[in-house]
Amino acid sequence: MRDFYPEDSVVQQHIFNTWAKTAESFGFERYDASILEPADLYKAKGAENEELVNEQTYTFLDRGNREVTLRPEMTPTVARLVAKKARELSFPLRWYSIPNLFRYERPQKGRLREHWQLNCDIFGSDHIAADIEIISLAYQTMINFGATPDMFEIKINDRAMMHRLYTAIGLSEEMVAELTKLNDRKNKISEEDYQTKLNDITKDEVLSEEVNLLLGKSDEQTDVMVGLAELGINNVVFDKTLARGFDYYTGTIFEIFDTSLENNRALIGGGRYDNLTSMFDGDPIPGIGFGMGDVTLRDFLETHDLIPESLFKSSAVLVVIPETAEQNLFAQGIAKRIRLSGHYVYVDIGTQKVDKKKARAKNKGAKYLITFGEAEISSEQFTLKNLETDQENRDNIETIISRLEEVR
Amino acid sequence: MRDFYPEDSVVQQHIFNTWAKTAESFGFERYDASILEPADLYKAKGAENEELVNEQTYTFLDRGNREVTLRPEMTPTVARLVAKKARELSFPLRWYSIPNLFRYERPQKGRLREHWQLNCDIFGSDHIAADIEIISLAYQTMINFGATPDMFEIKINDRAMMHRLYTAIGLSEEMVAELTKLNDRKNKISEEDYQTKLNDITKDEVLSEEVNLLLGKSDEQTDVMVGLAELGINNVVFDKTLARGFDYYTGTIFEIFDTSLENNRALIGGGRYDNLTSMFDGDPIPGIGFGMGDVTLRDFLETHDLIPESLFKSSAVLVVIPETAEQNLFAQGIAKRIRLSGHYVYVDIGTQKVDKKKARAKNKGAKYLITFGEAEISSEQFTLKNLETDQENRDNIETIISRLEEVR
Repeated sequence: MRDFYPEDSVVQQHIFNTWAKTAESFGFERYDASILEPADLYKAKGAENEELVNEQTYTFLDRGNREVTLRPEMTPTVARLVAKKARELSFPLRWYSIPNLFRYERPQKGRLREHWQLNCDIFGSDHIAADIEIISLAYQTMINFGATPDMFEIKINDRAMMHRLYTAIGLSEEMVAELTKLNDRKNKISEEDYQTKLNDITKDEVLSEEVNLLLGKSDEQTDVMVGLAELGINNVVFDKTLARGFDYYTGTIFEIFDTSLENNRALIGGGRYDNLTSMFDGDPIPGIGFGMGDVTLRDFLETHDLIPESLFKSSAVLVVIPETAEQNLFAQGIAKRIRLSGHYVYVDIGTQKVDKKKARAKNKGAKYLITFGEAEISSEQFTLKNLETDQENRDNIETIISRLEEVR
Repeated sequence: MRDFYPEDSVVQQHIFNTWAKTAESFGFERYDASILEPADLYKAKGAENEELVNEQTYTFLDRGNREVTLRPEMTPTVARLVAKKARELSFPLRWYSIPNLFRYERPQKGRLREHWQLNCDIFGSDHIAADIEIISLAYQTMINFGATPDMFEIKINDRAMMHRLYTAIGLSEEMVAELTKLNDRKNKISEEDYQTKLNDITKDEVLSEEVNLLLGKSDEQTDVMVGLAELGINNVVFDKTLARGFDYYTGTIFEIFDTSLENNRALIGGGRYDNLTSMFDGDPIPGIGFGMGDVTLRDFLETHDLIPESLFKSSAVLVVIPETAEQNLFAQGIAKRIRLSGHYVYVDIGTQKVDKKKARAKNKGAKYLITFGEAEISSEQFTLKNLETDQENRDNIETIISRLEEVR
């Protein structure tokens, strides 16, 4: 499990703030829910998900003997929320959340992993504009972290189209389902292994060859890609092998990949699901969304040197340093008055020497320093030092405050 | 467990943002940690805490057969973090966090409650300036939510002083411990019940009377109160019956109470603990801190009408409404360009009529509207409507963007 000391927490908050700001700039509204859900919520999605619930989640009995799960993903939760209030809500909805999610590693490792994810969804529109918007939001999130389009690539596919193409060459429903799962693991196995497994699925080498031919063609330009190009988004490729793990996708699916070789992983994944709310006995509400994890994103930001140095400066712009501990309280009074003018201020009440305190304030990124002792208290004249310019001004507190108000 | 639909989430985010901003204005740095801790972390604090762990927490075995607990409070976690890096950290530390915490209700109810709490601590100073600062931070948090000093009251006591006073009238160590626990429940039981239990503790009616006399005197004015008064904080009372539940307090303890009769509860509680880190085999590091829960705070804000109406407006300032679905993508292009100028914008891609969409945009709190159809696309002249003044301006997109840039 993860601890976040301040130097990690500032990066985490930078990620959360950029996520929230970008989603809100597209008019998305925030929602949240408890981390605990009934285990049935995940089992409902199909037999193979039961395996996921049993093997990869933290599921346990509560004292009322109910089986509860620390949520491994947010999509079933948001579908539950939307289905529950479907009659009151005004569609289309644009919703986002920044939940923490939990995955349990294979029993031999026995480790629980907690990570955070930005989840964005548009509910209640089956128009292609929703597909294009959700992908352009994913794109803009990357841009707002300082990424340039060459640093990442958007891979697009379409579940419904692939279904048509597969059945046209003679694959059965079962074969399509198995092939989709195989493609989802394509990058994790060898080419030889892939061909063996493909033959296991088709049981026909000619058919396997047709599948290879079909997947090899990449001259497609979908309507979604045309729409993205119109919005100036061109780092997009059509990839017929893109599969996505979850069953519930029904149309457009996409992933955003880091293009650097050292971190060539999916940063964002999502797609269209048009039946998800119907598992809560409601009408099916069309939706499209994506998730973006904090761990892979942080690796991306580190790889491309996109974590701003300014994050590691203290939020406090001004530090007040009294010469002796007897003056701590007087210093708190000065700090309070300056704080009222909108500046972030603290008093160094440590027992270290004044010089050490000055060095620490500078090291923490403070811009201003007020150091004082008995002489300053009796003369009512204090020195405000600008640590960036080394300029010093000696004034009474009122003048210092007006000076600071000017630089806010 | 709690779901946060957007109308609840905005209040929650307002609470979190005000907490974070106030703590940072005092120079506090944020930290965080996983919600799961080894159950031993809570048991370590003493026998009566074992009861707390067993009865009031969500404790279960993970697959590695380790006993883990959904954290019921943050103080043991932050003590663990500080103890672990005590040699690297530069004291005094000012740390804050906004964790979610979990309490399990008595087995017959069998409900798990999740709530959030602001936790602020100063580690590494035993100076009274730290006590005064932490209480003035708690006070300022209330003020920053729009509260006035008459809406709440700060109750202060001192564990060490009470210990001296109690032993001076002849109470044994055991009696002091039991009396502290009894006082912590004073407001929850009848006066008669209190006197019976007091006699059970002292086993001596004369001694009980001395305790009553001691607790009745309230003319004390502690150094902490004098310091707070110097900072302009005067809604403070000395209350010798104030006890606080946790064992680990060693000096100043305090609570902030809502003064309204309908919600007369503690909003904030905290105190000084000087030995907490030593349970991790480290040196004892003095500390003082407080916790402030979101549920009682929200009740306070509602009782005193302090939840700003503006929270319920959409973050999107401008809504683009195309006349037909075919123009959705064109509308996304307009939205993208305006968004680049820093405004929050969305396109209403719903299937409702234009008039209904206009009403919805206004209802959601949008300030500007661009409605367009084929005529606008071919003439390249679009109408920007200011929903507050009903003023309309017809221009090309560039001019509309410059107009919007001016009002940012």
